[in-house]
Amino acid sequence: MPAESVPLPAGFSAAGLHCGVKSDSAKYDLALFVSARPATAAGVFTQNVVVGAPVTVSRERVPTAAARAVVVNSGCSNVSTGERGLENAREMTRLIACDLKCREEDVAICSTGVIGQFLKMDAIRPGLSRLVESLGDSPEHLRAAAEGMRTTDTFPKLSTRTLASRDGGEARVTGAGKGAAMIAPNMATMLAVVTTDAALAPEAADRLLRAAVDRSFNRISVDGHESTSDTVLLLANGAAGECDEEALAAALNAVCEDLATDIIRDAEGATHFVTIDVAGLSTDADATTIARAVADSPLVKTAIHGADPNWGRIISAAGYAGPSFDPGRFDLDINGHAVCRGGVPTEFDEATVSEAIRSHRDCTLTLNFNDGPGTCRFWTCDLTAEYVRLNADYTT
Amino acid sequence: MPAESVPLPAGFSAAGLHCGVKSDSAKYDLALFVSARPATAAGVFTQNVVVGAPVTVSRERVPTAAARAVVVNSGCSNVSTGERGLENAREMTRLIACDLKCREEDVAICSTGVIGQFLKMDAIRPGLSRLVESLGDSPEHLRAAAEGMRTTDTFPKLSTRTLASRDGGEARVTGAGKGAAMIAPNMATMLAVVTTDAALAPEAADRLLRAAVDRSFNRISVDGHESTSDTVLLLANGAAGECDEEALAAALNAVCEDLATDIIRDAEGATHFVTIDVAGLSTDADATTIARAVADSPLVKTAIHGADPNWGRIISAAGYAGPSFDPGRFDLDINGHAVCRGGVPTEFDEATVSEAIRSHRDCTLTLNFNDGPGTCRFWTCDLTAEYVRLNADYTT
Repeated sequence: MPAESVPLPAGFSAAGLHCGVKSDSAKYDLALFVSARPATAAGVFTQNVVVGAPVTVSRERVPTAAARAVVVNSGCSNVSTGERGLENAREMTRLIACDLKCREEDVAICSTGVIGQFLKMDAIRPGLSRLVESLGDSPEHLRAAAEGMRTTDTFPKLSTRTLASRDGGEARVTGAGKGAAMIAPNMATMLAVVTTDAALAPEAADRLLRAAVDRSFNRISVDGHESTSDTVLLLANGAAGECDEEALAAALNAVCEDLATDIIRDAEGATHFVTIDVAGLSTDADATTIARAVADSPLVKTAIHGADPNWGRIISAAGYAGPSFDPGRFDLDINGHAVCRGGVPTEFDEATVSEAIRSHRDCTLTLNFNDGPGTCRFWTCDLTAEYVRLNADYTT
Repeated sequence: MPAESVPLPAGFSAAGLHCGVKSDSAKYDLALFVSARPATAAGVFTQNVVVGAPVTVSRERVPTAAARAVVVNSGCSNVSTGERGLENAREMTRLIACDLKCREEDVAICSTGVIGQFLKMDAIRPGLSRLVESLGDSPEHLRAAAEGMRTTDTFPKLSTRTLASRDGGEARVTGAGKGAAMIAPNMATMLAVVTTDAALAPEAADRLLRAAVDRSFNRISVDGHESTSDTVLLLANGAAGECDEEALAAALNAVCEDLATDIIRDAEGATHFVTIDVAGLSTDADATTIARAVADSPLVKTAIHGADPNWGRIISAAGYAGPSFDPGRFDLDINGHAVCRGGVPTEFDEATVSEAIRSHRDCTLTLNFNDGPGTCRFWTCDLTAEYVRLNADYTT
């Protein structure tokens, strides 16, 4: 579904606008998601030792059955800002709570942008009032909110799914996300706010969200750099009633996977979208560890960028990942072309495989270790000179 | 000391030449180091699950008190080549042993270059005979051997130190190394052959070499990609008699540190040589883990390339490394400029710090966590568009 027509679930409204955190007035830097009635909320956060003030604040507030809103700013992550940063984050939620006539604790917060700078509260305070005034439940309002979460993203990331509710009606799951670099599993500088009108208890919301994150946002990497701000929040307001849990999990998984793969499709400077399928390890965890090492190797990423079927870089990355395997049982296919069987090269035609990489934006690496049931699907991108250019001059 | 005048220790000879593994006939691709009499030998090898045939063969042969030679080829790493690769590696050592009138097991072997291709034995066999014929003990011969180890290195890497022997004479430690990418701790696609005329028992040689590698080759990273071929070999032939073990360790450490930092100075596409000093963690191991995470972050590397004092990337990399610390006690200096104290930004002048990075090839990041005795010095480089260009088209 095109971003301009993604709807919100029943009972939710959203807003986005520019207040001045970013210097370019054409770029939105505030977003708000509101449930008309108290909603269940769950969150999954970065595992970084260093976390932004908004992560500290939001972690204290979920899971809950009384959430009303999520406020987001982009352009400044409010990380490494000490007590002043914490107070700023709390004040942002307090101002929203005031306008919504709810408790400060019922508002969660996310921030993304440069680390080590203080929020421009003089711009944010009046911006928050305007934000509440501009709330609405149309796809345009949702899209404005998604715009307000963007940093270097080149497009807003939205996804939606529907499912049947138990009373014969329809429930909806809709997510908005952001992220394009500082992206690693567990998680990335990625934010996502997922809303649903299905009813969910806090315990179930927490469990379903963790499972969905584990197979989506925890399986992407742009540059292996885990951020201090990563946050995924789920709000479930029950406006559409109860749903079958399995169907709801499937919809939530699908929305999270859409947003996660959109982050990789929008990865800074990337020219290839790479799917890594790993099979044949003892456990899924081992398969994921190996997939991540392959995804994060600059040598694998540059080889794909150069359409170079230099598969030794892939097997060597697998070899330093940690899990043990028999190198003599390893099979590898690149875009469906067998390049390695039983740990030794096949007689593949380099020019053919190179052309298969060059001529498709999507690239698939299929690794089979032929020694167990463990599998993982992981997504990454190539490494380009444009990524270097974009990141060599971000703050200054 | 300039590479053209580094001498071999007494009782060693060396050679290097082009045999045809590399297509460019101006580039040497074979190297040989020989001890005139049986020498103690120790080795440290890659920890990758996937290893080249030469690693498998050399691992079986050290430590030993009967080593005579190390043969090296560049241009093809003989990795992922199965039984045929193992037989080729053994044949290379057999042919050298034949000419030197020693046992095959007394010859160690290293290879570096592309993975997943078979050695061109038709070129190597006659090359090995010429190699033995061209042995000599001059600095020119040593330099030719160092040239024979190179792949993408832009200069040969040689280092030497002298120390007093117990009988009042002089002993020497001389190392030759290679490496410029696929460089990560534990270890890199780096090879080094270190020779000394000091006397050493196999147990002591093994212990001193491991300690030296741990503080040199295990503390460098270009791209975090641990190779399948990493090998450091030490040959000690005793021609200069016994030395004080501490003095010998110091000389060996110095030679290994010279070669390791030369690899970083020659890192592919790099424009900055970065020293990361970490202090104030519980243990040296924790400090090393954090230093490595900072060194391997593409976002830290690109920020340095762009002379961008975006220090949030450094603290966030420290935060996902694994070891726990108090973010509120963290101090950071960039090239001697305090940018963070107690986890919050100082009032530093961005333009001044940026110019300090831009105008010096050497960059120092000083991280103090102020919570323990653990320290680590680690070396890395920046990430540039030139690295991407070089690695996007290596095999094809």
